[in-house]
Amino acid sequence: MLTETADPAAVLAARYGTAPPELRLRWNSVVETLLSHRSVRAYRADPLPEGTLETAIAAAQSAATSSNLQTWSVVAVQDPARKTRLAALAANQKQIVQAPLFLIWLADLSRLARVAEAQGLEAEGLHYLELLIVAIVDAALAAQNAVVAVESLGLGTVYIGAIRNDVTAVARELALPSHVMPLFGLCLGYPDETAPAAIKPRLALDAVLSREQYAAEGEGDAVAAYDAVFAAFQTSQGLPEERWSARAIGRVRTRAALHGRDKLREALNRLGFRLD
Amino acid sequence: MLTETADPAAVLAARYGTAPPELRLRWNSVVETLLSHRSVRAYRADPLPEGTLETAIAAAQSAATSSNLQTWSVVAVQDPARKTRLAALAANQKQIVQAPLFLIWLADLSRLARVAEAQGLEAEGLHYLELLIVAIVDAALAAQNAVVAVESLGLGTVYIGAIRNDVTAVARELALPSHVMPLFGLCLGYPDETAPAAIKPRLALDAVLSREQYAAEGEGDAVAAYDAVFAAFQTSQGLPEERWSARAIGRVRTRAALHGRDKLREALNRLGFRLD
Repeated sequence: MLTETADPAAVLAARYGTAPPELRLRWNSVVETLLSHRSVRAYRADPLPEGTLETAIAAAQSAATSSNLQTWSVVAVQDPARKTRLAALAANQKQIVQAPLFLIWLADLSRLARVAEAQGLEAEGLHYLELLIVAIVDAALAAQNAVVAVESLGLGTVYIGAIRNDVTAVARELALPSHVMPLFGLCLGYPDETAPAAIKPRLALDAVLSREQYAAEGEGDAVAAYDAVFAAFQTSQGLPEERWSARAIGRVRTRAALHGRDKLREALNRLGFRLD
Repeated sequence: MLTETADPAAVLAARYGTAPPELRLRWNSVVETLLSHRSVRAYRADPLPEGTLETAIAAAQSAATSSNLQTWSVVAVQDPARKTRLAALAANQKQIVQAPLFLIWLADLSRLARVAEAQGLEAEGLHYLELLIVAIVDAALAAQNAVVAVESLGLGTVYIGAIRNDVTAVARELALPSHVMPLFGLCLGYPDETAPAAIKPRLALDAVLSREQYAAEGEGDAVAAYDAVFAAFQTSQGLPEERWSARAIGRVRTRAALHGRDKLREALNRLGFRLD
């Protein structure tokens, strides 16, 4: 939904969690759609209007793809029973069941493997980590285009990385062939207005952008300022007050915090990726 | 540049390289921006208008990020000498020198490493392949939002994966700390209208989209049809007529075709990624 009337200063204030920062942006309806993103974790049951899935996928296919290899695919899941089984594999996130459409984005080298096999050719390159990275980037660029498209249509989305907790089981559920990695899920649906999602503030722009060479000099101050902004945001959402830095480190402090994804490399090996 | 008057059927015909396919899409200016993407490999020398870089990065930061970890950074390179050196590392692609702005997108775990260190905490999770994948996805989602933003402003872009040919040298040029991977470059500038880029056709929508479970039954026919579409596109662009399947397999047939990226895993190890 393009809300042409939104105030750029208000959007920026929400995005950076402060009084409007000293940023002079160029603004139009596309920029506004992008800046207004929020992840939606509560959905109405309403089905998606006809043509929504096709629009999302055509947008996804319009993204750049490395050497035009098109090393991604997507499975659209609408069957409630399958969504329930996938949710059980992904930390029981209720929005997977709630959203009318759950897309699983795949880093897919199997198409090239099949094309090579059909021609009786080798495809030695597929055995290298590089090609998995190509496929992951292809899939992510595609998915993000789909997100932007459906958000412009008034729908909400949320990525589900937790499908990587057990890629073996997800691959079995989706009948994936060898050389296909379930990368992330994406819920799509109408946001439940009774539980609206807010724009989440991010680190200051200068904390992620360097000029000419990597620079992290001001980072300590930027993180301290953001810790305060993030804690205030949490409070405003009725969530436990927490500093970003504490929360972020909690996600990576131990191997156990990875919820099974510490075994991702071995699981990918079993899915046919040698990762040389 | 939003060309509100573009004909959806014409855009779709270009995207799928046939008479307008049987797709009923939902259409607005955002969808049109997305569907109209083309990679631009010839740029005018004109500098970017003020605020363009900031708009791109604010859009990038507005993309979803796994667990809000924000594991990406970007270096903006404008210095002609540095662009020339980076081009030399990336298969001498002339558009890197030509475009007024070259962004290098980074999968960046170093920020979390610094935050943990400042707090005297462990960050064991950073040693796993999973966290590199988190950072790659974060960076790709962010970059794609930047692409959509600047395309809506009338600028062109092209991703440069060839910076992965020698990530060690790129990391040195950009003074990257440990735990940072140069993921891809992105040229930004005004398209040179004397060498206009065309929308490149893709595989049919059904070739990348499955319902409920992965299905590749119709793939052989889809690839054959696309081979013809792609060959016609090449001819229309004054390029050698070539089937897509032959070209794609050429990119992955041998280890040598990876142009150094067969050693990416070892290079990442040296950049501080254990990839457990």
